[in-house]
Amino acid sequence: MPIVDIHTHVYPPSYMQILESRSTVPYVRSFPPSNSSRLFVLPSEDPPSTTSTGRPIGPEYYDIAQKIAFMDTHKIDISVISLANPWLDFFPSSGAAAAAEALNNDLNATCDKFPGRLFAFGALPMSASVEEIVSKIKRLSGMKYMRGVVMGTSGFGKGLDDERLNGVWAALEETGQTVFLHPHYGLPKEVYGPTGGEEYGLVLPLALGFPLETTIAVSRMLLSGVWDRYQGLSVLLAHSGGTLPFLAGRLESCIAHDGKLHREGKIANRRTVWDILQKNILLDAVVYSEVGLKAAVDVAGADRVLFGTDHPFFPPLEENGEKGEWLSVTTNYKAIKDAFGPGEVEKVEGLLGGNAVRLLRLEV
Amino acid sequence: MPIVDIHTHVYPPSYMQILESRSTVPYVRSFPPSNSSRLFVLPSEDPPSTTSTGRPIGPEYYDIAQKIAFMDTHKIDISVISLANPWLDFFPSSGAAAAAEALNNDLNATCDKFPGRLFAFGALPMSASVEEIVSKIKRLSGMKYMRGVVMGTSGFGKGLDDERLNGVWAALEETGQTVFLHPHYGLPKEVYGPTGGEEYGLVLPLALGFPLETTIAVSRMLLSGVWDRYQGLSVLLAHSGGTLPFLAGRLESCIAHDGKLHREGKIANRRTVWDILQKNILLDAVVYSEVGLKAAVDVAGADRVLFGTDHPFFPPLEENGEKGEWLSVTTNYKAIKDAFGPGEVEKVEGLLGGNAVRLLRLEV
Repeated sequence: MPIVDIHTHVYPPSYMQILESRSTVPYVRSFPPSNSSRLFVLPSEDPPSTTSTGRPIGPEYYDIAQKIAFMDTHKIDISVISLANPWLDFFPSSGAAAAAEALNNDLNATCDKFPGRLFAFGALPMSASVEEIVSKIKRLSGMKYMRGVVMGTSGFGKGLDDERLNGVWAALEETGQTVFLHPHYGLPKEVYGPTGGEEYGLVLPLALGFPLETTIAVSRMLLSGVWDRYQGLSVLLAHSGGTLPFLAGRLESCIAHDGKLHREGKIANRRTVWDILQKNILLDAVVYSEVGLKAAVDVAGADRVLFGTDHPFFPPLEENGEKGEWLSVTTNYKAIKDAFGPGEVEKVEGLLGGNAVRLLRLEV
Repeated sequence: MPIVDIHTHVYPPSYMQILESRSTVPYVRSFPPSNSSRLFVLPSEDPPSTTSTGRPIGPEYYDIAQKIAFMDTHKIDISVISLANPWLDFFPSSGAAAAAEALNNDLNATCDKFPGRLFAFGALPMSASVEEIVSKIKRLSGMKYMRGVVMGTSGFGKGLDDERLNGVWAALEETGQTVFLHPHYGLPKEVYGPTGGEEYGLVLPLALGFPLETTIAVSRMLLSGVWDRYQGLSVLLAHSGGTLPFLAGRLESCIAHDGKLHREGKIANRRTVWDILQKNILLDAVVYSEVGLKAAVDVAGADRVLFGTDHPFFPPLEENGEKGEWLSVTTNYKAIKDAFGPGEVEKVEGLLGGNAVRLLRLEV
């Protein structure tokens, strides 16, 4: 059974050029004397930009040979690559559709250089019109290596419960493409304290802001009835759903006890989060603990959780350990192996790759 | 083995008078023609205030006889009552210490009317000076029914990683009192969308904002080294830790991969979240799902998770079911019973009451 990484990002060379041409987040800047480049991508990183903020960025982000080498090091047979955040969210609406098309062509061509080892989630021009987005979704469905789209939580700037997205969901459902829903915007800095949590580096926005953003976004989709309207819409949630597996019970309880929703008759006849977790939501296994992994499996089923690495983010800070393996990857491997008993090899194989091959149709 | 509810709130009559005298959150207002009272307590409820916002408030909040009746209905032997949010956080500093003392006297006297059935977490005057707070902590430690303090996430207005709180932590550690850490402030409304999530009633702030606030607060305590300095400080986290059990792995991974913390030498020699979860943190069992309950038990141990109800919040919206039991309570009972096998009766009994009796010394 192959090992498949469904959470693995790239900034293709054309996207790197965009980042290098910009001076507000997201951007890349080189600092003398070494001229090493640093990436500033999170809203919380804007400003300041100095050599001690942001993070190093090198060819692991744009050179596909480094992706393949990383895969070989970690015994990953297939990667489903996706543009890293913030995708084309910031792009002017005039050029967004053309940029998306060029990026998707680029991704598809990259996959074609390593047949059977690479597939991709395409990018959508979220600043363009619904018609242009739908046109790109239809185009993606005919591309050899494309298996869905990567999307942030912003939608048209007002979140994923925006009814103007109906046409987008309908097109994705109709073409059977999975949405890989990924955070980027986090939470307003003030929630981390008077300094915005700066004294803790990027820990608070990455460890908490990202999963909380995802949880809010998917809860708003649920509450606004996206999955009541599009019962076949498949959404893969980054970072094992943010915190959704743990909070699903509280979410259902708060809905069941909400006076306003009750008075408006919105509690009955809705699909519950439990139903959607088992039929529409896929979870990656990027949760870094056995406890989290078990919760993800408990809510979605062992046949709907999929291994991922988040490469090239979270590289080792120290010299690599044995065989150059990354701690961020081995932590997730270990969680999967520890979560199951000796009689559950099939489940482990499913999580590591079988589920991805089946659910995303990863055959050339 | 008794059943103990460690998460159960009151607004004593003197506190109700304060709420009724105010016109900004938190406050209570009566609306004609029925003159029924409604409570507006969350930052997100200010403004507006109409009969369709806020929530009904009646004697279940201030009449201890109703607490005892609720306990009897749900077979709860002992309750550890605490002032509901936002405690005295909003109180002018000049009168805060006296108000805390009066409230704590009131709570202790209330417990004394039902010996063996009621204990309490006291209130602290967080707008007063460190010296005054420490004085109240010492006073509480000598009061017959007091077993700790209830506290929000604000501290002196700048969060719980504020070094000015050192004296408070030291006094709590020294007197062996548990901090019941409870959310109130949630997240800025804009994270819930253009309308602040109003269309979903109070679901988003209560289901997500509350647990996310708790998670951020405890993560900041951890990162700022509170438990490195006060290794005996015991903190009971509301709502099973917010989302901490699920995110503990990601938090540790983000710390281990943070360039800034690494450069500053802050990664080595620190206590990990796993260590603190097993030695300093207690979790309530107010998580409304078997999945969440299992995750709480996995991180803290079955001997450190404690049953709670969140009464009088989350009352049934419909007519009560069998024997007048509350859905919000039976959901948590069921989660505890479902999470353990037939050979684990001792663990179930521990969660339902044994742990609380042992850890909070609930003997008269």
